[in-house]
Amino acid sequence: MRPPLETPPPSSGPLAGSTLVRTLAADLPAVPPGSAVRLQGWVHRRRELATVTFLVLRDRTGMAQVVVRAADGSQQVPPEETTVEVIGTVVPNPHAPSGVEVVGRQDAGLRIEPLTDAAETPPVELWRPTLAASLPTQLDHAAVAWRHPVRKAHGEIAAASLRGFRDTLDAAGFTEVCTPKLVGTATESGANVFAVDYFGRSAYLAQSPQFYKQQLVGVFERVYEVGPVFRAEPHDTVRHLAEYRSLDVELGFVRDHRDVLAVLRDVLAGMAEAVRGSAGAVRLGARVPDVPAQIPVIHFAEALELVGAPADEPDLAPEHERALGEWALAEHGSDFLAVEGYPLAKRPFYTHPEPGSARWSNSFDLLFRGLELVTGGQRLHRYGDYVAAIRARGEDPASYDAYLAAFRHGMPPHGGFAIGLERWVARLVEAANIREVTPFPRDLHRLTP
Amino acid sequence: MRPPLETPPPSSGPLAGSTLVRTLAADLPAVPPGSAVRLQGWVHRRRELATVTFLVLRDRTGMAQVVVRAADGSQQVPPEETTVEVIGTVVPNPHAPSGVEVVGRQDAGLRIEPLTDAAETPPVELWRPTLAASLPTQLDHAAVAWRHPVRKAHGEIAAASLRGFRDTLDAAGFTEVCTPKLVGTATESGANVFAVDYFGRSAYLAQSPQFYKQQLVGVFERVYEVGPVFRAEPHDTVRHLAEYRSLDVELGFVRDHRDVLAVLRDVLAGMAEAVRGSAGAVRLGARVPDVPAQIPVIHFAEALELVGAPADEPDLAPEHERALGEWALAEHGSDFLAVEGYPLAKRPFYTHPEPGSARWSNSFDLLFRGLELVTGGQRLHRYGDYVAAIRARGEDPASYDAYLAAFRHGMPPHGGFAIGLERWVARLVEAANIREVTPFPRDLHRLTP
Repeated sequence: MRPPLETPPPSSGPLAGSTLVRTLAADLPAVPPGSAVRLQGWVHRRRELATVTFLVLRDRTGMAQVVVRAADGSQQVPPEETTVEVIGTVVPNPHAPSGVEVVGRQDAGLRIEPLTDAAETPPVELWRPTLAASLPTQLDHAAVAWRHPVRKAHGEIAAASLRGFRDTLDAAGFTEVCTPKLVGTATESGANVFAVDYFGRSAYLAQSPQFYKQQLVGVFERVYEVGPVFRAEPHDTVRHLAEYRSLDVELGFVRDHRDVLAVLRDVLAGMAEAVRGSAGAVRLGARVPDVPAQIPVIHFAEALELVGAPADEPDLAPEHERALGEWALAEHGSDFLAVEGYPLAKRPFYTHPEPGSARWSNSFDLLFRGLELVTGGQRLHRYGDYVAAIRARGEDPASYDAYLAAFRHGMPPHGGFAIGLERWVARLVEAANIREVTPFPRDLHRLTP
Repeated sequence: MRPPLETPPPSSGPLAGSTLVRTLAADLPAVPPGSAVRLQGWVHRRRELATVTFLVLRDRTGMAQVVVRAADGSQQVPPEETTVEVIGTVVPNPHAPSGVEVVGRQDAGLRIEPLTDAAETPPVELWRPTLAASLPTQLDHAAVAWRHPVRKAHGEIAAASLRGFRDTLDAAGFTEVCTPKLVGTATESGANVFAVDYFGRSAYLAQSPQFYKQQLVGVFERVYEVGPVFRAEPHDTVRHLAEYRSLDVELGFVRDHRDVLAVLRDVLAGMAEAVRGSAGAVRLGARVPDVPAQIPVIHFAEALELVGAPADEPDLAPEHERALGEWALAEHGSDFLAVEGYPLAKRPFYTHPEPGSARWSNSFDLLFRGLELVTGGQRLHRYGDYVAAIRARGEDPASYDAYLAAFRHGMPPHGGFAIGLERWVARLVEAANIREVTPFPRDLHRLTP
């Protein structure tokens, strides 16, 4: 039986390198001084002084300082970004960043073994506290630039967010579903879809799992999906991507959109909690939001009034969203604000109206620090209402036949929402451009790397 | 403050329906007899006898039997699949499937309120223990057919598998990543990709996240992704789909493919454990596999010999895989068998050779019950080796430039694997066709619903 990949090293005594298991940088301070350790990682920084060379080794958990002295003989520190294995002894050093460093062993000296050929000089300087390179340069060299601890932290925050999202919903009886990204029709919004050559036929990339998640409410009642969505919108802004990760939720047996908002509140709280505990958020000192027990809600009509916009505005402009965000913080101490009641005419056909109103809808947008992060609401659930809503938009219900089958055969009152993962992370780390938190963004101009 | 959506009802006393919170079918046996309850769900089965009508109500947790008597007056049971709300009293009945049933309350009778118009008769009979409809009929009517408890169980098993996959990897220091599905080149395998019209340029749907997950090993060391992959392969078989969910893993600082296999073993054990505890597996009585502490491994050359195939066969045929599956079960009591050493020439260019061999590779396929479920192995990690391997296949390394940047700038020895989710579920529930466990399959012929 082979030894496990990673376990703490034996607590004492020098050991032959070949049987010594790997110690992670973050675990180093807990290793008893004098123990032999084996580190693996990247040469994050090589600093050659007159009598000593410092090697800062980076692994997935953090940094470890290695000190190479003349007494260590022929050991060379390879260039930055080369992957290496280091075997030495842990000693305390209050001046070292983690309170300990690794030096040569009395009996066997220090061993630094490159795991590959010497790395070429990186196109961006990774060892500096901030990435000085321009965003286009970073994106052109994503495979390397994302190794920077700040960029890595963004990825860790995204991963923690996904975990918090799923854990909250799993605990609330939701079922994760996988719905197709290749679809046969461009019905939800005919424009702005990417066309695919599908075995000689036309297919499209799904702009959202909306129709499928609704149908699956008929199966599982409560469903969620994390997946890519594709928007062929020729936007060229700091907040739009042509492909992004959508965190989709849909649930049945709701009274109205306020029940949907209650689930959204719990989901955001779970995401924030997971992020707060993540190494990335700690490293960045990210300002993780507190999610209030009840997210403040304002009606769309009131919101327009509050920001001094004309009462017949059909949507909120970015500057209105910013003003509302400031108002929510000042008035409610909340980074979040739900705006409900959006004009029905501006929402998709499946949107449920406000009871007794032809103008307003049971839908909402959620603003996070003054930026739209989530769209959600109650959907229609009666077949007849769908037929009427589709006809009212001048379309033929027959072209929605497969989708409408769910409603002909019994659906509960339901609703849901979708969170854009990249937007959430960008807003959380206060990035100026969504591309700063997206390793390989896709947009009007960028399709590589 | 609005009451929560679902909490146990008060333990005694009849309550006005409007303030009574919902009870789920699975929680009904734990409700004290005589309590008022409010159920919500679908009319799974309506059975009208001379003096009494049985309503089997289905919700996401199971079934509840409701008994409608003449004394309940005008209460009608709507047609099957209509969503309803039922308010009544819980009484023990040892003959009822769950040991309890819901009847009219002494003071207020039984209330059955449809939540929508009466549902049309479903295109497939959902209330029978097995779905008698042909597979094409089921797929044509997926939105309804998947409500059948057996189909729903498949979805629950898939969701549990995903949870087990992620939980195992999260605990082992892996970071979840999201990589683009729209890519600029069709480099990994030029044929069999779907072309996309990307703002007037050509893009392709990613066949796998292989290149990206490798690059991200450079950032996070250990990564995983769950996402759609797209194969424009004109296969028309019971085990291929044009879009499926790939569970991708990649990790750095491995010694060779055996370290990768050790992680795969833990991942499969975590998936099996999660499935074992899922409602779907319990309902189906699914034969969830025991994953041995060490998955038996056989070399490709030995495997050929064992099945009596010529020693120069480049791959295992399906009948060979079946025979090997039977052998693993007989010889090792294992549903799993890893075949290592596949001929290098038949594996992708990034495959690491067996040390000292030009013929064999450090890669493996994992067979689950005699069917290929996972492909994995060690990858090349030196830039020079990539250039040589790409040239050896008659290709130009320049066209892989963005990918190769990771290797020019330092990568660790690494490897990984990919599990096909639908194949795993299909094999686990012993489905004859992968489409039985895929709600909305995409293949040569099918792009809808």
